[in-house]
Amino acid sequence: MKSISFQHVNLTSCYLFEKHELNRTTTINAVYDRFYETGRIGAFDFKYKEGDETKPHVFWDSDVAKWIEGASYIISKVPTPELEQKIDSLVEKIKTHQDENGYFNIYFTVCEPNARFTQRSAHELYSAGHLIEAAIAYDKATGKKDFLNCMEKYANYIYKVFIEDKSAAFRFPGHEEIELALIKLYRHTGNKKYIVLAKNFLDERGIDKNEYRPDIQAHMPVLKQNEAVGHSVRAVYLYTGMALLAQEIHNIESEYGKDAILNAINNIWEDITLRKMYITGGIGADFFGEAFSTKYDLPSDIAYTETCAGIGLVFFAQEMLSFENNAKYADVIERVLYNGLLSGLSIDGKSFFYENPLEINLTEHISKRRFPITQRVECFECSCCPPNLNRFLSSIGNYIYGADGDTLYVNQYIASELEYDGITSKIETDYPNDNKIAVTVSGVKYIALRIPEWCDNFKINKSYSIVNGYAIIENDESKILLELDMPVKLNFSNPSVLRTAGKVCISRGPVVYCAEGIDNKNEKNQDENYNILHKFYFSKDTVFETKFDEYFGLHVVDAKCDLIDDFAEGTLYSSSFPKFKETKLRLIPYNCFANRDESDMLIWFQYK
Amino acid sequence: MKSISFQHVNLTSCYLFEKHELNRTTTINAVYDRFYETGRIGAFDFKYKEGDETKPHVFWDSDVAKWIEGASYIISKVPTPELEQKIDSLVEKIKTHQDENGYFNIYFTVCEPNARFTQRSAHELYSAGHLIEAAIAYDKATGKKDFLNCMEKYANYIYKVFIEDKSAAFRFPGHEEIELALIKLYRHTGNKKYIVLAKNFLDERGIDKNEYRPDIQAHMPVLKQNEAVGHSVRAVYLYTGMALLAQEIHNIESEYGKDAILNAINNIWEDITLRKMYITGGIGADFFGEAFSTKYDLPSDIAYTETCAGIGLVFFAQEMLSFENNAKYADVIERVLYNGLLSGLSIDGKSFFYENPLEINLTEHISKRRFPITQRVECFECSCCPPNLNRFLSSIGNYIYGADGDTLYVNQYIASELEYDGITSKIETDYPNDNKIAVTVSGVKYIALRIPEWCDNFKINKSYSIVNGYAIIENDESKILLELDMPVKLNFSNPSVLRTAGKVCISRGPVVYCAEGIDNKNEKNQDENYNILHKFYFSKDTVFETKFDEYFGLHVVDAKCDLIDDFAEGTLYSSSFPKFKETKLRLIPYNCFANRDESDMLIWFQYK
Repeated sequence: MKSISFQHVNLTSCYLFEKHELNRTTTINAVYDRFYETGRIGAFDFKYKEGDETKPHVFWDSDVAKWIEGASYIISKVPTPELEQKIDSLVEKIKTHQDENGYFNIYFTVCEPNARFTQRSAHELYSAGHLIEAAIAYDKATGKKDFLNCMEKYANYIYKVFIEDKSAAFRFPGHEEIELALIKLYRHTGNKKYIVLAKNFLDERGIDKNEYRPDIQAHMPVLKQNEAVGHSVRAVYLYTGMALLAQEIHNIESEYGKDAILNAINNIWEDITLRKMYITGGIGADFFGEAFSTKYDLPSDIAYTETCAGIGLVFFAQEMLSFENNAKYADVIERVLYNGLLSGLSIDGKSFFYENPLEINLTEHISKRRFPITQRVECFECSCCPPNLNRFLSSIGNYIYGADGDTLYVNQYIASELEYDGITSKIETDYPNDNKIAVTVSGVKYIALRIPEWCDNFKINKSYSIVNGYAIIENDESKILLELDMPVKLNFSNPSVLRTAGKVCISRGPVVYCAEGIDNKNEKNQDENYNILHKFYFSKDTVFETKFDEYFGLHVVDAKCDLIDDFAEGTLYSSSFPKFKETKLRLIPYNCFANRDESDMLIWFQYK
Repeated sequence: MKSISFQHVNLTSCYLFEKHELNRTTTINAVYDRFYETGRIGAFDFKYKEGDETKPHVFWDSDVAKWIEGASYIISKVPTPELEQKIDSLVEKIKTHQDENGYFNIYFTVCEPNARFTQRSAHELYSAGHLIEAAIAYDKATGKKDFLNCMEKYANYIYKVFIEDKSAAFRFPGHEEIELALIKLYRHTGNKKYIVLAKNFLDERGIDKNEYRPDIQAHMPVLKQNEAVGHSVRAVYLYTGMALLAQEIHNIESEYGKDAILNAINNIWEDITLRKMYITGGIGADFFGEAFSTKYDLPSDIAYTETCAGIGLVFFAQEMLSFENNAKYADVIERVLYNGLLSGLSIDGKSFFYENPLEINLTEHISKRRFPITQRVECFECSCCPPNLNRFLSSIGNYIYGADGDTLYVNQYIASELEYDGITSKIETDYPNDNKIAVTVSGVKYIALRIPEWCDNFKINKSYSIVNGYAIIENDESKILLELDMPVKLNFSNPSVLRTAGKVCISRGPVVYCAEGIDNKNEKNQDENYNILHKFYFSKDTVFETKFDEYFGLHVVDAKCDLIDDFAEGTLYSSSFPKFKETKLRLIPYNCFANRDESDMLIWFQYK
């Protein structure tokens, strides 16, 4: 299917609409303000001199570029003069300070002008990629060509350096991003040179036999890669770039075709989603290298699971939909979206997690072992995630619809209205709080509604057939009513997942739940609330109650659990069989954790 | 009670006798040979010159001192001319190279002679302590006074430097050991100066308010300490020193008495044994600083649990018995002995663990997280544990008996014969393989037999009363038969222990069991044996079979467990309830793990 751009969709209500609006009214400004305060905006004046207090960082360009991209998406839908002025001002500075030859990078102009394209690890091409994506977004939003022209000039210069002159000290970027950006630039401009350049960066990766670098996916040629390895954000940006190239490779001369790329990314997709993905959709278990770990190694407490990696996995999944109309890709998008991606943003929209742990035990944090931070902050030194959320949330409409011939696919259930290519569609729902979805469509013969993988039973007021996870319905332009059974469910991980083997995770619809210590104090000792969450046991007979919670914007769940009895005072080990008493456990949506106070947090509970 | 020295005890048979003999015939020589090869023995020639290949390390003196101590214990029981020659040769060199003022340390003579007593972290006083203990052992074994004279001279010099001149750059050692050694030196020589010096080192620790060093137990005055913190070996050596001082403080003038020290070490004992001790008796959970972690933080896979810390905990427990005739101290000695201490030594007696993990998942070791090594080695760069095992195993007879008035306490059940102060005693047993112990005693009115904490039912062929965990029996000099019920048992940890909450550990008698991957292959896939051990579930109805295993010298256990079904191919998460099939799990004594090949290993199993 071909995804339908958010440009054609207007969100109208429901949970994700609220997040979309929070980003538009709050987060976009919060990120700009922090970038202003930290010198990232000022850096575009190119005034830095050796010895100045604030030295531009090699990837600051990319932080601001992602912010421009997000802000452009916003103004493309809702005119916002203050935002547009800020973008215009940045674009003006980019125009002013771009080199005559087309080169553009703040750090390598004001700090190390003689070191351009000498350090593969320096994020130059990564920043270029984000600037290109921003320029496309700005052009689409405003019709002003300046930024796009600059970035085309830069892309042409990169083509010259890497393909014609081969004058760079490295042959492919240390951090992928430019590959996918170049394919998008081709799509926007029609210039096939950009496909060639993207393909070049992919082909050069991993072919040097003297260099084995799985940490940056340069351990073998990309077409031979079949496992997800290394830095997880780089990885999913690479795989997205490969998927995009597969879609466009027929437009250029190439010694291989789409299928060769598909073979690699299909294997990688399986490796991620069947062996290396947390139940929250988070990826990248390992702090060391911010990387994928070995298969089934998914520890909760030290989970790295960067917000950007979640966003990148959505990008990858979205492109996979273009090859196969299979709901499994949209299922992963949903899993990431409602859980490990939104957990990156505070409820007030102003602070962020870079890492998204799946478990917090404050007592352990006293030890010197390395754990993720337990509270969101407003800006990081490496603050890639906040503007990534800006651009993601402002374009969240991208994930609702796909079109393939005479079928309109509905992938995500967000209350919204679509007008696109003779098709109109309206989705009415309070998903995921409510389980009812009404869809009214005109202009296509078939409507395909995704039946989420979490849903065991559903009703539709029309006849349908199920194909690859979609209910295919012949369209009579009357309202289709889909009702998804949405009970609170117990989830188990594959027994090979060491750290969650034998445990249970609670979900309702697409929302994964956690418990926080703050809601579940130990009766015996309110002051010294040690590790209470591990003491609650679920069983197949556990009874749940749910109710909507205004603050979280989602339902909370109360479970009648069995709380294990503490041992008698002065016993560390015992052969007495465990005793339990029924005790209520309050569960909240995982993505809402750490919004009130520092607290223990748990997703995977004891099960008996 | 007063512990009766191994000098009065002859071991005759049974499991610990075999370990004692293995040390005498094999381990003592293996350690010497490695120390010879690595230059530790040669260093006593004091020939090192700047630029030489092998540079003495600051704590090499202590490694060899512990070996001398162990070898001296051996020759004191079994004349062994080759061993005695090696010791004599080392003693001769010590005598030759000791400074005229009494100072003795190889590193600070041949490498940094001007830096003596300037670096608290440099283990000078720690090495001095071990040399003192070795000198006492050598004197007791041989009656030759040379080494003792040297070390008395050194101790007097240390007294001068630290008490009279106060000329050292620090006031107390960075690594405790000398405190306990000085009390032993007092006991051996009668010179009260050594009590004063030991007390000085204890009193100086932690009183500088500008310095907060819990890592070396210098965060508060020792009498105020009530939790076990910091480097675990240093800690238990400190607490042992405090316990020894408490026993002797009445011999000197002091502003505080025994009770003030007891108050501190009683609290610390509780903190260790009720909150910070692994089920194997291992202590020191944290790799960072080789240290105690916070209470109930006892992770299995990254457990540090140094062999020396286990030995030190036995020392501490043994001294606690002198204050209170309570079996709980001997119970801890037994727990450490059969599990986390003997795990430090290979079955062939030639290689060693420094760290003793309680879980190995080889698939996780591919990640960059820090795990202990998975196979024993013959020597470490910091090779403190091997000679500590030499001195411990050669003096294991120390832990069998205690005397208090007209009562003979039997703390550990090792087949042996005692002759001491008009008392004779004979223990006949094949403990811990067999559950029957015969004890025949003359010369005392009462016999107190420890009823191990793990034992729920026992029989004695005499009338008895239970006092503090001991069965007190009026002695009629006929054979006492004690029969301890020794079924395979399920053990649970206090639910506050995060990492083992809800899990079960198998034991039989004092022996904790583990399973290794090598014995329990996955039927489905022999080659790729991922994480199988976590898939076995125990329940209260699990049936066990035991049989003696020649190679391990202990019983192995076969359990009829429930093995969880693997998920359908291609499923990472599922809401289907787990399914099981009955499958045999082979369990082996924990202390025998990693003796065959590199393998997964697990102690704490799933329980349902």
